[in-house]
Amino acid sequence: MNRGVTQKQYLELVPPTEEDARSSQMRILDALKEKGITASFTLPALQKLYPICDEADYNITVSLAWNGSIWQVVDLEAGDTAAEHYGYAADLGSTTVVVRLVNCSDGTVLAEESEYNRQTAYGTDILTRIFACKDKPEVLQDIRACTMETFTLLFEKLRQKTGIAPSDVLSMVVSGNTTMIHFLLGLDPFCVFSSPYAVRADRVGFLPAKEMGFPMKGCVYCVPGKSNYLGGDILSGMIATELYKKETISVFFDIGTNGELVVGNREFLLCGAGAAGPALEGGVVKTGMRAAEGAVDTVKIEDGKIQCHVIGEGKPKGICGSGIIDLLAELFLNGWINLFGTLQPERSEKIKEDPKTGEWCVEYREGLNFYQSDIAEFLRTKSAAYTMVEYMMRESGISMEDIDRFYAAGAFGKHVSKESAITIGMYPDMDRERLICAGNTSLEGAEKILLDRTRIEEIDRILEEMVYIQFGQVSDFISMMAAAQAIPHTDLERFPSVQKKLEERKQ
Amino acid sequence: MNRGVTQKQYLELVPPTEEDARSSQMRILDALKEKGITASFTLPALQKLYPICDEADYNITVSLAWNGSIWQVVDLEAGDTAAEHYGYAADLGSTTVVVRLVNCSDGTVLAEESEYNRQTAYGTDILTRIFACKDKPEVLQDIRACTMETFTLLFEKLRQKTGIAPSDVLSMVVSGNTTMIHFLLGLDPFCVFSSPYAVRADRVGFLPAKEMGFPMKGCVYCVPGKSNYLGGDILSGMIATELYKKETISVFFDIGTNGELVVGNREFLLCGAGAAGPALEGGVVKTGMRAAEGAVDTVKIEDGKIQCHVIGEGKPKGICGSGIIDLLAELFLNGWINLFGTLQPERSEKIKEDPKTGEWCVEYREGLNFYQSDIAEFLRTKSAAYTMVEYMMRESGISMEDIDRFYAAGAFGKHVSKESAITIGMYPDMDRERLICAGNTSLEGAEKILLDRTRIEEIDRILEEMVYIQFGQVSDFISMMAAAQAIPHTDLERFPSVQKKLEERKQ
Repeated sequence: MNRGVTQKQYLELVPPTEEDARSSQMRILDALKEKGITASFTLPALQKLYPICDEADYNITVSLAWNGSIWQVVDLEAGDTAAEHYGYAADLGSTTVVVRLVNCSDGTVLAEESEYNRQTAYGTDILTRIFACKDKPEVLQDIRACTMETFTLLFEKLRQKTGIAPSDVLSMVVSGNTTMIHFLLGLDPFCVFSSPYAVRADRVGFLPAKEMGFPMKGCVYCVPGKSNYLGGDILSGMIATELYKKETISVFFDIGTNGELVVGNREFLLCGAGAAGPALEGGVVKTGMRAAEGAVDTVKIEDGKIQCHVIGEGKPKGICGSGIIDLLAELFLNGWINLFGTLQPERSEKIKEDPKTGEWCVEYREGLNFYQSDIAEFLRTKSAAYTMVEYMMRESGISMEDIDRFYAAGAFGKHVSKESAITIGMYPDMDRERLICAGNTSLEGAEKILLDRTRIEEIDRILEEMVYIQFGQVSDFISMMAAAQAIPHTDLERFPSVQKKLEERKQ
Repeated sequence: MNRGVTQKQYLELVPPTEEDARSSQMRILDALKEKGITASFTLPALQKLYPICDEADYNITVSLAWNGSIWQVVDLEAGDTAAEHYGYAADLGSTTVVVRLVNCSDGTVLAEESEYNRQTAYGTDILTRIFACKDKPEVLQDIRACTMETFTLLFEKLRQKTGIAPSDVLSMVVSGNTTMIHFLLGLDPFCVFSSPYAVRADRVGFLPAKEMGFPMKGCVYCVPGKSNYLGGDILSGMIATELYKKETISVFFDIGTNGELVVGNREFLLCGAGAAGPALEGGVVKTGMRAAEGAVDTVKIEDGKIQCHVIGEGKPKGICGSGIIDLLAELFLNGWINLFGTLQPERSEKIKEDPKTGEWCVEYREGLNFYQSDIAEFLRTKSAAYTMVEYMMRESGISMEDIDRFYAAGAFGKHVSKESAITIGMYPDMDRERLICAGNTSLEGAEKILLDRTRIEEIDRILEEMVYIQFGQVSDFISMMAAAQAIPHTDLERFPSVQKKLEERKQ
């Protein structure tokens, strides 16, 4: 049974006779009705009725796209082409856009490609882009065009890999945060970051792909968002993890420039979001960089020496998020920094003063320094992240022991070492197998929706039930954050496994 | 209450606050839901949310277009513009296209314009056009473009009259025969006239105006057809006359190049169609012309002299359908032709032999002759028309006395003299007040649908219930036609009022 947002139906119709002179269109609609499908035709599909029906002796395949209220016949092909049934699932990230080409007839992924979001021409961070187009419709149109261009590039890469062009594809499901969806649609997203935080549109649903300027035959479904900071990427994460279906309680944590958090189960869902800071993605930090070739991504201190792995195995150019977390964990466990993150120069000759600025730093690779201010920045970020979780738990009256699963989502969550992240107190200290590095749940969710439109009803239910909590409005959030800036935390009891490690090291 | 295919709703929304930070989109959708309207947004409407909502302090008017399954928000305007609510009703005829601009807020007609259908560049008669584009997609596209151009001209004429441009208009309802709808959509209509007479599409329904290439904001609804020869123009005529709602039985007869006929009431509907011949519209006949300036449109014989009225009061150039019917009736009543239509030279010096061809003719105006062959052609046409009615009556077991109303539809029906049409036996002999010259019922029906979408369900019901009868398949149709070629009929008993007139003349 096909449950996706598109379907292809092979029909063996009886050709018309003078006794049964129903139109080609009605023959198809009647045959679909027999299969329980009520549909209407788009103009391009009407225009293909002739000569395809006649030439194929009325053995034809119709392509149908769900438009949110009805099935639309968007294409006709001669013969049985039901197996050639393609869809796109996309994660529209502010930094990276990922598109999967899915064979919807069997649910297999044919190819996946990612590209930098071309919007970065208007600023690497999202706020710069928002300010660039504020009340400048022509800049907004440019940023929209950049977004479309990124998709075009991805579609072309997928075509080169598989031979399947976007015009062969029926529909696309896109997950993105609220700002990204605003940019995709050409809506001014200034509202996302300014009081009263009421955005333009968050329940866009299905739009005809052609109306948006895409070459696909069917529709584009934008996963809806809950609020300005809690967008479709997170709702898509819900679909990916299905925590809203479970009896046991889960935490879903997507951490990047912003942190988005959901705690709950099939009976309740609390959600919140807050700025985490670009430190986690290697921003701010002076030698920080994205997880690309030349980035130090894992760090180990052995026998007083810092061992690094470099992506691409070449000369290191900087350090990415997972490398930073490893580095901090190792510095801490080896006593090179204390619980406040202060460098301890007596522990290693790699810790020194920068001759130019006089600032203390640790040289993790030749010529690459990690500074005291970098550490402080990162600790602020990790404490913001931890405090979101802590606060949410307190609000829901749940203790960490009640948590069955902790999903760390996002590209960052996928590559970071669980051990290191717990050691520095970014993730709570819990059974490692219950801490899931869930990867790109935004993309996973989009794919699930593409293949199963009943997920859309589930999303609508989630949106109804989810309770949003503004962290900024909580009075003791700042003091909670201060306590979480220590490594792993001023209350070491919360991190028994880290305590144990420290004791082992002391022996 | 607005029942049309479009509506405008003025909404006084509460602007967002941090406590109620619903998106602009959701504020509108929620307010519409309170009014019982479930809707979705089109992309252009989403793109207008900002800055209109803010600038108008959320006192806005939304334009909604019904797309066959849901209401779509197609536009937003600041303030209350609900009274500026416009729609088009159109009769897409093969010769003439008529468009009415309707104020949908109160149902008044603001203006009406007509134009020759620019398709005539590919042939004045419909068959020539069909052959011109058969299996030639580029010619088909040209004919489609001619159709669109005709509408563009009409929209512009309406704009000049009223200041209301097509981009200010929401939706359009179009009635046309099956071929015309095929041309409008760019579908090859060869199927309409060739066995097995199964057309491409007859239930097109609503299509987005923009997808069709029209500048309106909403949709275009093409009135569906029953079969190849019984198109949306006739269904629209049903809506105009409402004969399907009446207890008493009516006949609906639209006669032009083709004749389409419906007999029935709220309990049954029989329909049929056949070629009547271009004679009725002034084709074939050697001095025949359309009802335009210079056409003789009424004829009277007094004191042995032929009196003509000429459209425009100038020099006559030819004779149109209503003139021909008058002429034949007068020739017959004055004994200048016998009941077989044969000219009687002894009755007038105006009856003479054409010196060039030797054919007998009557000179109805100086230099303008009506030939024996013209008479024969016309009698074939009128007998085809009469026989359709007769056959249909016989099939339904109804006699003429059972008929409460006889609707003669079409421009032809509007201008022809009832007396003359009965005299020559084209319309049945019945009480004159029960014979209704109904005018352009195709246009009237389109307007009714524009203003009341519940008519669409009625059309669907009519299509279900209507039984189509192919006249060509009836074995004794030819002999019935032969009997009807006499004036008024070989069976004079059927025309008592004509019999009476003849007796009066003899006295």
